[in-house]
Amino acid sequence: MARPPQPILAVNFKAYHPYSFGERALRLARAAEKVAKETGITVIVAPPFTEITRIAENVEIPVFAQHVDPVEPGARTGYIPLEAVKEAGASGTIINHSEHRLRASDIAWLVEKARSLGLQTLVCADTPVVAAAVAVMAPDMIAVEPPELIGTGIPVSKAKPEIVTDTVKLVEKHNPHVTVLTGAGISSGEDVAAAIRLGTSGVLVASAIVKSENPYSKMVEMAAQALKAWEKYR
Amino acid sequence: MARPPQPILAVNFKAYHPYSFGERALRLARAAEKVAKETGITVIVAPPFTEITRIAENVEIPVFAQHVDPVEPGARTGYIPLEAVKEAGASGTIINHSEHRLRASDIAWLVEKARSLGLQTLVCADTPVVAAAVAVMAPDMIAVEPPELIGTGIPVSKAKPEIVTDTVKLVEKHNPHVTVLTGAGISSGEDVAAAIRLGTSGVLVASAIVKSENPYSKMVEMAAQALKAWEKYR
Amino acid sequence: MARPPQPILAVNFKAYHPYSFGERALRLARAAEKVAKETGITVIVAPPFTEITRIAENVEIPVFAQHVDPVEPGARTGYIPLEAVKEAGASGTIINHSEHRLRASDIAWLVEKARSLGLQTLVCADTPVVAAAVAVMAPDMIAVEPPELIGTGIPVSKAKPEIVTDTVKLVEKHNPHVTVLTGAGISSGEDVAAAIRLGTSGVLVASAIVKSENPYSKMVEMAAQALKAWEKYR
Amino acid sequence: MARPPQPILAVNFKAYHPYSFGERALRLARAAEKVAKETGITVIVAPPFTEITRIAENVEIPVFAQHVDPVEPGARTGYIPLEAVKEAGASGTIINHSEHRLRASDIAWLVEKARSLGLQTLVCADTPVVAAAVAVMAPDMIAVEPPELIGTGIPVSKAKPEIVTDTVKLVEKHNPHVTVLTGAGISSGEDVAAAIRLGTSGVLVASAIVKSENPYSKMVEMAAQALKAWEKYR
Repeated sequence: MARPPQPILAVNFKAYHPYSFGERALRLARAAEKVAKETGITVIVAPPFTEITRIAENVEIPVFAQHVDPVEPGARTGYIPLEAVKEAGASGTIINHSEHRLRASDIAWLVEKARSLGLQTLVCADTPVVAAAVAVMAPDMIAVEPPELIGTGIPVSKAKPEIVTDTVKLVEKHNPHVTVLTGAGISSGEDVAAAIRLGTSGVLVASAIVKSENPYSKMVEMAAQALKAWEKYR
Repeated sequence: MARPPQPILAVNFKAYHPYSFGERALRLARAAEKVAKETGITVIVAPPFTEITRIAENVEIPVFAQHVDPVEPGARTGYIPLEAVKEAGASGTIINHSEHRLRASDIAWLVEKARSLGLQTLVCADTPVVAAAVAVMAPDMIAVEPPELIGTGIPVSKAKPEIVTDTVKLVEKHNPHVTVLTGAGISSGEDVAAAIRLGTSGVLVASAIVKSENPYSKMVEMAAQALKAWEKYR
Repeated sequence: MARPPQPILAVNFKAYHPYSFGERALRLARAAEKVAKETGITVIVAPPFTEITRIAENVEIPVFAQHVDPVEPGARTGYIPLEAVKEAGASGTIINHSEHRLRASDIAWLVEKARSLGLQTLVCADTPVVAAAVAVMAPDMIAVEPPELIGTGIPVSKAKPEIVTDTVKLVEKHNPHVTVLTGAGISSGEDVAAAIRLGTSGVLVASAIVKSENPYSKMVEMAAQALKAWEKYR
Repeated sequence: MARPPQPILAVNFKAYHPYSFGERALRLARAAEKVAKETGITVIVAPPFTEITRIAENVEIPVFAQHVDPVEPGARTGYIPLEAVKEAGASGTIINHSEHRLRASDIAWLVEKARSLGLQTLVCADTPVVAAAVAVMAPDMIAVEPPELIGTGIPVSKAKPEIVTDTVKLVEKHNPHVTVLTGAGISSGEDVAAAIRLGTSGVLVASAIVKSENPYSKMVEMAAQALKAWEKYR
């Protein structure tokens, strides 16, 4: 499995109101940038479509879309093709989040087209088998997230560590160039450390940061534990 | 049927590349604002989600979303609830465009919730019967657009004028408070005049303006004909 | 509102396993036919697609599909157009059940096409406004079913009687030719009586009959109460 | 790649009217059974949901559903879970046909659940990469069908033979236990022979047989060529 030079903290803003929108969204992105600069880990922010432009203008860390529609640009009212998020300043996109699943053919199409446009892809998968299938499509990153744990605060690394280790093994077998992240239920630095200990390169996290009273300290805590585990286990 | 104080020109940017995005999208919105100020007609611009923030910050005419997802805010990765477009500065939204149809229950839910949030709604319908059904849900505006004419340059007012007049009649019967627009195939000032002559209050138009070499003059032409017809037929 | 000559008991088999399939499905349909013959009320059975043929060959009461896909026949792998359920022996179809919502345009298209094929339509709606919108499309029957009550055993007639009475009023206003049924949470003869007392012509019911230990007696109980209420309130 | 003992001719009835329904559907299934018996090749028939019961009662060759819905049995009005097609007498199902694409997670879930129910799976894929991704999920069969060729009468084996050979190679690499078929544009015995020559074990075919004036002779022609090529190339 491909290990990036430093651990990854991908922050999915989802569509929490008021947290994920407007001035708050911008503040959250700036806090993420600060953590990235101070700790050296990679922090990716994934705001809603409507917030990408402003955030991308204001921070220098990678900004990802949460989703893209599997369509070419054109007469596609209300759809957001890859070109739209690129124009908005995004450098990549989440694809196939458990709250926004896509058809197998569309994932393959989007991953390939994103590559040709210079956009990175982080594809979500609910099981090791789906993660391995997606690995064949060669995205940059895969996050394994059992849907039944998303938003629960119960980390997959604790509830079902074998899902993480099986994913790492299967992805390694089918496409060793893909970076694997752990998602679902990540809420503390300890969970991030466990994700890295189990063989993945970081986490995809949402409410624990976005709805936190102090997102900055939460991210600092996660980054610190990520770096410690990174030293020890990679 | 409710007649607004002046004719309406609603410009759907769709997702044409590069026309509907970035600097070009902003220029188009500014040209629309100029036309609104110079002629006194109402010009609504409907850019893609990713362009709403910047356009809403820069123009004073109504900015509509092209679509909203029928979801509450929350753990809804990649979806755009009404709250998101409101936070982005939109004052309304298109709903149920022929390229993005919604379930009947969702249209009703969105129209009612938009009202409670102070957002206007422009609901598309493909036939007089669907327009009348939607009128029962009490949106601000309905645009009748036979899908087979969208993007053809053949105006419904010419190809199937009875679709427009039947819509006006049926909407009037089921909910006289709704404003009716004509969509589909509008490409000239003449088409706009026909739309008003047939009893509607304006048009919903896309490629003829968005992909025009000179969107400003195209809008000026449409506005001029709209005003002439408005004097004569309202 | 159109009142049929006798009250209606529409039985949605859903996809309960093993209740809704095979030999059991056929027995259930035969029990329904027996109740219809013995009591004189109209009993409609709506089995899964895969059971329509056999049931339609074996009973003489109306057999409805639970759903139809809004497509023309042709290269439509895995879809079931209206022609398919007609060929299978169905005399009508449920449309837009809360578990299988359809787009507004598709409901209108299906209702009209079903009429031209001689198939009856029973369209579900979650609110009085949606019911009224659907009434404009002129189906034969509308069942109002607040989704939050479906399968709860709490009848809408008890929990939210105003939803039923508002539906009756609004449908009457927009299209008096449509028959209205009450759905959601119907589990006893008393609930059926309440449905008729509130102004509707019968009920759409599922689990209370399909998963009953003795579907025949449950239907007899409902039919008896329906007839009593019918005498009193229609 | 897994080679079955004899070549496979899978006949997708689609939803052609009147060809795919009623008496005609049954006659077509019987002709397929005759061809299977006379030639020794495997013929699979895939009729619409509404025709499965009757056909499965009348023929002894494998009957597949054209699609299944990725749902558990229960309160699922109008959906067809795996249990429904099993009860109806099917021995397997097509999944992810280009006219009925499914989400990656749902394909994986259906393939695994079908296996546990003793149902076979034939999963369609539009590209070699998607075929390889699906192979990771371990269905019994994969049919590669570039959607742009479906229904054209231009066989993929002629227009894009490298799609077939790349699929064979990639599937072999990721899961050698899966049988590969060629779909899209197959219309003659020659096309079937080409499919086998390029390394696949047979074909998935629809209109060329279903809408043929004489489906029996068309199938005999295909079976004959399949057997000849089978001798030569397997």
